[in-house]
Amino acid sequence: MRDEGRKNGRIIRAPENFVDPALVQEISEKGLNEERRGFLRRGFLAAGAALAGGTGIVHAATASGSGGDPEILTLPEHSKTLGKPVAANPYGVPSRFETNLVRRESPGLTRVSAASVSFAPLQGLFGIITPSGLHFERHHQGWHDIDPAKHRFMLNGLVKNPKVYTMDDLMRMPSVSRMHFIECGANTAMEWGNVAVPTVQYTHGMLSCSEFTGVPLSVLLEDCGYDKKNGKFILAEGADGSGMTRTISIERALDDVLVVWGMNGEMLRPENGYPLRLVVPGVQGVSSVKWLRRIEVGDKPYATKDEAIHYIDAMPDGMYRQYTSIQECKSVITTPSGGQRLLDKGFYNITGLAWSGRGRVKRVDVSTDGGKNWRTARLENPVLPKCLTRFNIDWVWDGSPVVLQSRAIDETGYVQPKTNELRGVRGTKSIYHNNAIQSWKVDVTGEVSNVQVY
Amino acid sequence: MRDEGRKNGRIIRAPENFVDPALVQEISEKGLNEERRGFLRRGFLAAGAALAGGTGIVHAATASGSGGDPEILTLPEHSKTLGKPVAANPYGVPSRFETNLVRRESPGLTRVSAASVSFAPLQGLFGIITPSGLHFERHHQGWHDIDPAKHRFMLNGLVKNPKVYTMDDLMRMPSVSRMHFIECGANTAMEWGNVAVPTVQYTHGMLSCSEFTGVPLSVLLEDCGYDKKNGKFILAEGADGSGMTRTISIERALDDVLVVWGMNGEMLRPENGYPLRLVVPGVQGVSSVKWLRRIEVGDKPYATKDEAIHYIDAMPDGMYRQYTSIQECKSVITTPSGGQRLLDKGFYNITGLAWSGRGRVKRVDVSTDGGKNWRTARLENPVLPKCLTRFNIDWVWDGSPVVLQSRAIDETGYVQPKTNELRGVRGTKSIYHNNAIQSWKVDVTGEVSNVQVY
Repeated sequence: MRDEGRKNGRIIRAPENFVDPALVQEISEKGLNEERRGFLRRGFLAAGAALAGGTGIVHAATASGSGGDPEILTLPEHSKTLGKPVAANPYGVPSRFETNLVRRESPGLTRVSAASVSFAPLQGLFGIITPSGLHFERHHQGWHDIDPAKHRFMLNGLVKNPKVYTMDDLMRMPSVSRMHFIECGANTAMEWGNVAVPTVQYTHGMLSCSEFTGVPLSVLLEDCGYDKKNGKFILAEGADGSGMTRTISIERALDDVLVVWGMNGEMLRPENGYPLRLVVPGVQGVSSVKWLRRIEVGDKPYATKDEAIHYIDAMPDGMYRQYTSIQECKSVITTPSGGQRLLDKGFYNITGLAWSGRGRVKRVDVSTDGGKNWRTARLENPVLPKCLTRFNIDWVWDGSPVVLQSRAIDETGYVQPKTNELRGVRGTKSIYHNNAIQSWKVDVTGEVSNVQVY
Repeated sequence: MRDEGRKNGRIIRAPENFVDPALVQEISEKGLNEERRGFLRRGFLAAGAALAGGTGIVHAATASGSGGDPEILTLPEHSKTLGKPVAANPYGVPSRFETNLVRRESPGLTRVSAASVSFAPLQGLFGIITPSGLHFERHHQGWHDIDPAKHRFMLNGLVKNPKVYTMDDLMRMPSVSRMHFIECGANTAMEWGNVAVPTVQYTHGMLSCSEFTGVPLSVLLEDCGYDKKNGKFILAEGADGSGMTRTISIERALDDVLVVWGMNGEMLRPENGYPLRLVVPGVQGVSSVKWLRRIEVGDKPYATKDEAIHYIDAMPDGMYRQYTSIQECKSVITTPSGGQRLLDKGFYNITGLAWSGRGRVKRVDVSTDGGKNWRTARLENPVLPKCLTRFNIDWVWDGSPVVLQSRAIDETGYVQPKTNELRGVRGTKSIYHNNAIQSWKVDVTGEVSNVQVY
């Protein structure tokens, strides 16, 4: 064991942080032997008392406890043994230590799980790309794994040459790749009332972001010779049992709408519309029809059930607002967020996501005092239109109770509203389109929870 | 069945492309019944003869055969039934029809699969993000799934305060997210000689691109008070049995090197260094040490085995070039590529990847006549430094034999060399750093194969 330790280099795995620097230096220079090991045990146990920085945030998703087990000082097995071969997993999977980071259905949210929602675990995600395995789901009649060789896409209605395309037909056409978020119109719905759901997974987790690849719908409309005089709207229709149908204006259809097969480098996942879906950037997710089987060009809105009586906004006067669809500028702090815990005072990196259905995010401000003072956060590159933007900002927690907030501003100059500003216009009976500022309270014990700040 | 068909809308799944437009129109207006179904069977069989566009490329990874089965005209089960519920897969997986798209070890390439390579299936990928499950692998002593609660990272050597960090310590520090490619220095190695391996997976598949999240190494070096006078190099060391060690100059270490835990939104995969790895943007992959356990600051290069006698370039005069590391500007067409087949003349989208270890890709040119004439391709956004860039260009194949090539130019003005230009300088005995232009031949039958064009 001793020889093997030396042979494998001069490194040890220390059980705690901030041990005596001289000790680290000595180990690094001279290696580890039996006496030194005993010495180290004593040294590390003493060093534990001086632990300045603590172990930081316990992530709800990746809770980790670092015990003081002295046996940890032996060289770990993985530094001494032959590991697993390449392609042991021809298609790789996450670590066995990450099994808690999954999408989850909110218990009791809907009556049927096939017509429900699973939320993406934003509290444990980094950057802007949502791993495809964790993309949120919203199905109206469940999902299927459709054979792409048999799938067909028809374009008809006010067009010169109606066509039926195979997947192979589509995939040889001019394709583009673009990063966009998809957010369900009902994301953050529970916050309209005073129901403060506990975690960011449930408050904001009907949100994901991917690199999509497909053919611009404009190319297909040209290919079929759409009627440029009378074609004012399109109807997009899915192949699942719900027959999901949505109207989209021809201006938008010709702008940046994509007929998509690729998502984060590979084919769409079945839950996300494999083998073909629409992506309508910046617009509530329901318009990005999954398992796309047909687009019809028409001269007026189609007023389907999923746009005339569902996905409408209840206003304070008892009336409903129809055909609202753009996801306005919004942001949320994902760490620290509800359900996480700060184990110590000191330095933290506050991080979160910002986005706008109208273009690029211009700026994100962060408050650590419930909205009295704001500091501008760093935006990570790339900052793309109708795409998530990751922000980060330094913060030193002094141990007192605080309320954390983020506020995004997009390139149109629109500023994400406070809860009471939004409620002043919209009341509290809506389900959809809540883009208010989110507040997370940190109490003296370091517990983070969802609070309503008006 | 008939009623159900009507109830579920007016859509049918047609077995072939470009059927009679009038027929499509009629179906779309009147729906499908028993007589019409018989009519359609006959109609579609006739339409088959008029099939103008064909079914395009057969992807090696997603080969799809669209049979002429008349029974296909019945409404598919997935349009009539309740599908699977949300979170049926709490962590989602690809479609059952995509099981052929996996990373693969080249048979016989190495003696031990734990010290080998698996290649990413570039021929079936889209955009720039490589799905984490398909990221290429290069291990020197196999991979392990290391417990993050027990993993430690030490920074020592010429520093005022050597430190041992837990994962929690690192994850509360200032973090950044950046998209970068990782390419093995040995990518495209077989092409030095006259061995034309058959597919782009094996020619260029030691290449992947991810959004990485971590703490800049410069922050950690400052945190430990590195010696600004004498600290000229760092040594990075991995925790696997191979004790992989690489020297990096302090200038580079302070520039854009990251100590990374996040990859494509989630924690690193075990095969890619979970829970901690180095990412050295633009430099051959071996420097991006996986399972990172230590960085030492020193005053001279360390001349470890993995840089002094491995990862060196055999030159024509019998000498070896050491410490070459930057991955020069390079590109490859991924579709059409070796092993794929064009089933018809007509329109195709030529697509591929370009990258440079020195910054952004400025331009990509594509030739369809073996390098005589070049056209400039479209670059997809974002175009980021030391990151893959996706290019696309239209092409109409007239059915004659052709040679397809791409040529990338980076922002330094460097132009990707032809095979004979590179061999003129480097000879043919190298293993590493082959960035020559790749040629794919399309023969009259539509078969695409790897050819050497000088």
